[in-house]
Amino acid sequence: MEERTEISTLGEFGLIDHLTKNNETKNASTILGVGDDGAVIDHFGKQTVISTDMLVEGIHFDLMYTPLKHLGYKSVVVNISDIYAMNATPTHITMSIAFSNRFSLEALDEFYEGIYAACDKYGVDLIGGDTTSSQKGFIISVTAIGEVPPDKYVTRSTAKVGDLVCVSGDLGGAFLGLTLLEREKKVYLETKGVQPDLENQDYIIGRILKPEARKDIIEFFAANDIIPTSMIDVSDGLSSELLHICKQSALGCVLYEEKIPVNDLARQFAYKLEIDPTACALSGGEDYELVFTIPQSEYDKLVLNEQISVVGYMTEAIEGSHIITKGGSRHPLTAQGWNAFN
Amino acid sequence: MEERTEISTLGEFGLIDHLTKNNETKNASTILGVGDDGAVIDHFGKQTVISTDMLVEGIHFDLMYTPLKHLGYKSVVVNISDIYAMNATPTHITMSIAFSNRFSLEALDEFYEGIYAACDKYGVDLIGGDTTSSQKGFIISVTAIGEVPPDKYVTRSTAKVGDLVCVSGDLGGAFLGLTLLEREKKVYLETKGVQPDLENQDYIIGRILKPEARKDIIEFFAANDIIPTSMIDVSDGLSSELLHICKQSALGCVLYEEKIPVNDLARQFAYKLEIDPTACALSGGEDYELVFTIPQSEYDKLVLNEQISVVGYMTEAIEGSHIITKGGSRHPLTAQGWNAFN
Repeated sequence: MEERTEISTLGEFGLIDHLTKNNETKNASTILGVGDDGAVIDHFGKQTVISTDMLVEGIHFDLMYTPLKHLGYKSVVVNISDIYAMNATPTHITMSIAFSNRFSLEALDEFYEGIYAACDKYGVDLIGGDTTSSQKGFIISVTAIGEVPPDKYVTRSTAKVGDLVCVSGDLGGAFLGLTLLEREKKVYLETKGVQPDLENQDYIIGRILKPEARKDIIEFFAANDIIPTSMIDVSDGLSSELLHICKQSALGCVLYEEKIPVNDLARQFAYKLEIDPTACALSGGEDYELVFTIPQSEYDKLVLNEQISVVGYMTEAIEGSHIITKGGSRHPLTAQGWNAFN
Repeated sequence: MEERTEISTLGEFGLIDHLTKNNETKNASTILGVGDDGAVIDHFGKQTVISTDMLVEGIHFDLMYTPLKHLGYKSVVVNISDIYAMNATPTHITMSIAFSNRFSLEALDEFYEGIYAACDKYGVDLIGGDTTSSQKGFIISVTAIGEVPPDKYVTRSTAKVGDLVCVSGDLGGAFLGLTLLEREKKVYLETKGVQPDLENQDYIIGRILKPEARKDIIEFFAANDIIPTSMIDVSDGLSSELLHICKQSALGCVLYEEKIPVNDLARQFAYKLEIDPTACALSGGEDYELVFTIPQSEYDKLVLNEQISVVGYMTEAIEGSHIITKGGSRHPLTAQGWNAFN
């Protein structure tokens, strides 16, 4: 039988001690970490970038098919992805969680294992947080802090007409992974005892359960003296993100369907389900890739990077935002991304 | 009839635009605020202090007697109180909320009115956040960021033997206010139509519903060249906070019951309920006063400040932590503060 320790036997402070006892800081700027009213960070003349995200059980994740360790990992990754999307380097996170009494200490340990794994991978220090109870479900709130050399941060609002629109990695996989998991959950619930059929779908399942943030792309920019003119990460789908850049930069854009990078395994699964892979890339979300714009003159600097695809270009606002399909027809780009309020 | 706008008519980004449209930044260090993947803060050679707190409906607040505007105000105050407790000045906050569809846009506007009122009062900029839905209840997560001159921050772990233990303002009022509100809620629910009797209890009700953070005390320290040897704010009650200082400084303490500051109106109400006012101060919590230690040699610097009371002194750890009652007897100090897991 699995061990189960009630959290109430520890109390809040015992719990914090327990969850953070192996927490080692990695950044010289971490002057004071977990365990006081606040943490203290030094800056060495850099600028600080802050981002925050909340993940709510039943809205953002389903514990029926999400291992807690993966959830912990993902909670960190989705936040530091926002820091990378500012062209900054994440250095610190705070982690607040609320959970009902159905969670045992062992469950929280698993969750924190994922958090520490992500912190290690991305060189980030956990410096604080809050642990409390909820009436229902598991709620996670992460704040990520990063640093950037003065005025090298990149916003969504500074793309220019004629800039190339680029994306990292591939898109749509996370949505297809989610679709698969939801389908198998349904089958499992309707036909008790039937084990889920997830064979050969590691790629898309990995994309939804254990996404990675594009640290490599930011490092590539630094190594090659590239500063994108605008950037955003893909949480809601390519359409939605690109429309943010258009709106905030007061521009339009043209996107080429054939240029949108979709992984082969994801594409095959989409066909099997009779879903359009392009629709998954445009509206699926949760891929945590980077969408950014660069001047055409910078194209040579990134053409050899196989992790970057040029998918379109920016236009005057009056021309609107469109996608040119493989068949050559032109459609307005619409945001049908994931919306927590629908 | 009151207006009610469904939040789903706006979508997440429309909602963020709406809630932040009057948000003005107050700090020169705010380079980029709400509206991108992250915010950007400059530091001018100071150190940054970060703190975070989560407030959960049904656990930390009851919307039956908590006006949303007050709740917004309090969410900010309890977080910046942690920044003051580090001897730092709060400069920025991020605010993440999750709420079910029973909340209307008008309700969120009220909540944000309180947030902005607190930001104005304390000179803090709201620079980011997340808005999402919950399956049940209202969940608030705030991260506060502050600044402090290099190495002037104050932790819980550096009190010294012989230091005086001081507290700001008065204690126990918030707990008594909460007790009153809970009592009147019960009466109201049991006897429909009976209006709550809150007359002459503005003080204690204000303490629980609209607490203030002790900005004035930190400013007094700076003006008088006082740096406490340790400091913490009162969220769980004086006993619990002082025991944190003892534990983290590896010391003991002696506390004098007769020195613990309790407001007269609070004391009268405690007597009316036949509760010991000292117990309210020791274990009540949520007063958001500051508990700090100073060397005896610094006593002259604060003796004239009526907002500061000396309540005891620090001892060697081996002597333990005790309270000397008004009757002269000596009892071990125990933490019976508010515990979210009980």
